[in-house]
Amino acid sequence: MADPRFFARNTPLRLGDIAEMTGALLAEGEGAFAIEDVAPLDRSDRQKISFLDNPKYIDSFAESKAGACFVKERYRDRAPKGMALLLTEDPYRAYARIAQHFYPFIPQVDGISPHAVVEPSATIGKDTTIGPGAFIGKHVEIGERVIIGPNAVLHEGVSVGHDSRIGAISSLSHCLIGERVIIHRGVHIGQDGFGFALHRDGHMKVPQLGRVIVGNDVEIGAGTCIDRGTGPDTTIGDGAKIDNLVQIGHNVQIGRGAIVVAQVGISGSTRIGDGAVLGGQVGIAGHLRIGPGAKIAAQAGVMADIPAGESYGGSPAVPVKDWHRQTVALARLIRRKKEQA
Amino acid sequence: MADPRFFARNTPLRLGDIAEMTGALLAEGEGAFAIEDVAPLDRSDRQKISFLDNPKYIDSFAESKAGACFVKERYRDRAPKGMALLLTEDPYRAYARIAQHFYPFIPQVDGISPHAVVEPSATIGKDTTIGPGAFIGKHVEIGERVIIGPNAVLHEGVSVGHDSRIGAISSLSHCLIGERVIIHRGVHIGQDGFGFALHRDGHMKVPQLGRVIVGNDVEIGAGTCIDRGTGPDTTIGDGAKIDNLVQIGHNVQIGRGAIVVAQVGISGSTRIGDGAVLGGQVGIAGHLRIGPGAKIAAQAGVMADIPAGESYGGSPAVPVKDWHRQTVALARLIRRKKEQA
Amino acid sequence: MADPRFFARNTPLRLGDIAEMTGALLAEGEGAFAIEDVAPLDRSDRQKISFLDNPKYIDSFAESKAGACFVKERYRDRAPKGMALLLTEDPYRAYARIAQHFYPFIPQVDGISPHAVVEPSATIGKDTTIGPGAFIGKHVEIGERVIIGPNAVLHEGVSVGHDSRIGAISSLSHCLIGERVIIHRGVHIGQDGFGFALHRDGHMKVPQLGRVIVGNDVEIGAGTCIDRGTGPDTTIGDGAKIDNLVQIGHNVQIGRGAIVVAQVGISGSTRIGDGAVLGGQVGIAGHLRIGPGAKIAAQAGVMADIPAGESYGGSPAVPVKDWHRQTVALARLIRRKKEQA
Repeated sequence: MADPRFFARNTPLRLGDIAEMTGALLAEGEGAFAIEDVAPLDRSDRQKISFLDNPKYIDSFAESKAGACFVKERYRDRAPKGMALLLTEDPYRAYARIAQHFYPFIPQVDGISPHAVVEPSATIGKDTTIGPGAFIGKHVEIGERVIIGPNAVLHEGVSVGHDSRIGAISSLSHCLIGERVIIHRGVHIGQDGFGFALHRDGHMKVPQLGRVIVGNDVEIGAGTCIDRGTGPDTTIGDGAKIDNLVQIGHNVQIGRGAIVVAQVGISGSTRIGDGAVLGGQVGIAGHLRIGPGAKIAAQAGVMADIPAGESYGGSPAVPVKDWHRQTVALARLIRRKKEQA
Repeated sequence: MADPRFFARNTPLRLGDIAEMTGALLAEGEGAFAIEDVAPLDRSDRQKISFLDNPKYIDSFAESKAGACFVKERYRDRAPKGMALLLTEDPYRAYARIAQHFYPFIPQVDGISPHAVVEPSATIGKDTTIGPGAFIGKHVEIGERVIIGPNAVLHEGVSVGHDSRIGAISSLSHCLIGERVIIHRGVHIGQDGFGFALHRDGHMKVPQLGRVIVGNDVEIGAGTCIDRGTGPDTTIGDGAKIDNLVQIGHNVQIGRGAIVVAQVGISGSTRIGDGAVLGGQVGIAGHLRIGPGAKIAAQAGVMADIPAGESYGGSPAVPVKDWHRQTVALARLIRRKKEQA
Repeated sequence: MADPRFFARNTPLRLGDIAEMTGALLAEGEGAFAIEDVAPLDRSDRQKISFLDNPKYIDSFAESKAGACFVKERYRDRAPKGMALLLTEDPYRAYARIAQHFYPFIPQVDGISPHAVVEPSATIGKDTTIGPGAFIGKHVEIGERVIIGPNAVLHEGVSVGHDSRIGAISSLSHCLIGERVIIHRGVHIGQDGFGFALHRDGHMKVPQLGRVIVGNDVEIGAGTCIDRGTGPDTTIGDGAKIDNLVQIGHNVQIGRGAIVVAQVGISGSTRIGDGAVLGGQVGIAGHLRIGPGAKIAAQAGVMADIPAGESYGGSPAVPVKDWHRQTVALARLIRRKKEQA
């Protein structure tokens, strides 16, 4: 089970309730059987429920001691004897739902720490917590049930919607943050971006007059930096999920529900469509359009627009099939050379 | 116009004054006409001035409602009827100058916050502001009109020149910072770099005995890390501009006016010449020399010296023409294969 | 010599003592001769000792004014006249040992700052220092002789072993830190990783129920982020050295003594073997195994397992010899094309 120093576990659930909560079909096992916890396949036991999603782990599934498991119909016959089966087409999502039951996020309402510094003109909603060492600047507006971590800094004029959480040691300026947003630790949002009129006698700084607008239900990973717009705004669409150490330049628009994996860099004025997925360490040049639902493989270097729904990879990025062909062609080239040698 | 929560706008300017301030030629429009604000081409109106720099936006120019626009002579005939034209060979720089007029940086002098912790042996110049939660260590020397953001940490012995700004939640040690330097939020300068004598029985830490010397008019982006030298110093030349999340190893020397875009990594003891430009996510191996004025394309991986003024790209990096040829050759290779199939 | 604002130098050493401390053979020079400091070859003088490790610097060696030098037997005849020679097969390690003598790390025991906020249920060991603005949460356990930097944040339940140092402006949660660990500034450990059950109607957050376990003698660079496990733990083996701005995903296991250079990204559930070396900006996909002692060249993109002891490079990564062959083959391809033109 999860380390009780860090996690408090909720009450058990009967299999029948689990099926109802997740829409899964209880195909093996009794509805009254009680499950006490979630666990991965290889660390599970009679009282715990696991899931099989990535077929890479099918052997773990076949050998698992889990009392119950979310699994797709097609893998049903690989189940060990005696394991209760909850059939669903989305085992990971069902597992997530039950894990949320056992380990719910319960915000601790501590109010405003006497060690925080809050400007008198700031507005703080009901049941909001502000950690020690946090600084809340002039005219900042914070909604209800918000949690601001220790030593976070919210500069003048920033607003944060209801139920959002700002991690410790993060800094916000020139931005409006939506509701139910999770900003992790060490995130910096709203600084002026890399805007210079280059000149051999000294680069001239171009005032950056836009903001960062973060929609609802967005999550932003640790160490990520989002620069404010130059005049237009930098925008992060509702439900977008951004990982750690990502760089987002000025005027970038991230679509609703887009996925941006760690260490991605997106240059100024590029637009990422709704539901697009950018793999780790992807780099995207400025002023491009990545279509809705496009998928970009890790480490790709994107130098041109990508149409909606297409998959690209490589640097410079090409359609993913061509990228694989390039890899094969290169392998063939050097094989031929080895044979000639 | 810019959100008044975050930006205060200055008084209007007449077109004649704008021409004089920027050296542009007022080719269309009346000198007495008043301009109230700056705006991008597609969000401008009669009272605002825009600019056309990137030819990609020439359609926006042709359709813009801007009252006036900085533009190169050669695009003059694409201007919409009634738009005042200010002809210049550097429209972006002229725009920057006027944007600085409308939205000047006016440092707010708040003095030393009662919530800052300042060691008695530190020296703080006149009109300097130190934010709440900042820590100023022993023997730190801070010049005049400096701004130290909330929760910033300046360790023992650091010095910061006049008119510099240190962002919130940044940390400095073992460094001397010049004048008019802008250090954004979450920047870490002066930690000891990655110096180990590797050994299977345990890697031995090598004391890092140098400093970081940051010249005048340097800008350093959010989340960037600059390690101190091993004995020699790590140095950042006057006027260099460094973007977010950049990694600069020990003993690196960055030349005057160099441009280092986001997420670049520069390994130990490499020297970057004056005015060199490194694109986003470039990686450079250690102990190399990148000549003055060299240009390195985004995501390039540099494993050898680059001569002055040359353009390189790819990983491993090659002259940019050869890199493009490689891309074409690869495309041809797989096309031939497709035709054979 | 090192800047006395930042470094305090220890007493001189006789050459005979230096030989004894390092196991080097004093081949030229007198044992009674006193050395006062360490310095690089090109900044040394009579009273200082240097080292030659990288053959690239052999000319500096030949021209050096150093009074003494650690050097391999094979370069002995390139030494300038009058230089004392200390022969050893590992000059860098010997140098490190003597540099540690001249500039020892002497922790300053300042106790708990009155400007720190420490929850009453936290346990703080003897001779531990907690800087101003630091926050120590409930039930945190900190060992003896630990140093917690200014404005660092240790969330509820975290433990830190004896003699470890946590840099300013770092944040820890859901983690157990070993002994003699060095965590630099701006490091974020223990946040919940990038775990979502993706769905077009909204991505569902998957509770992350594991921890981060950091072994003894680990070093973690500035700005690095390490996510906690999903149920299993994320683990960093004893003696591993991790550079700046590295991203380590949930459930990753880093082996003992592994070296992870700056800006590397390691995706979830990947295991890095003992003593493996990952070059700068390497990206590794999830659920892979990198064998013990494997070496991965800078910027490589790893999409499959790598066997123990093998060297890989390129993106997608291949054995390093094949990578070099690819580079040569590409160069030949475009040369041929140029000749045809």
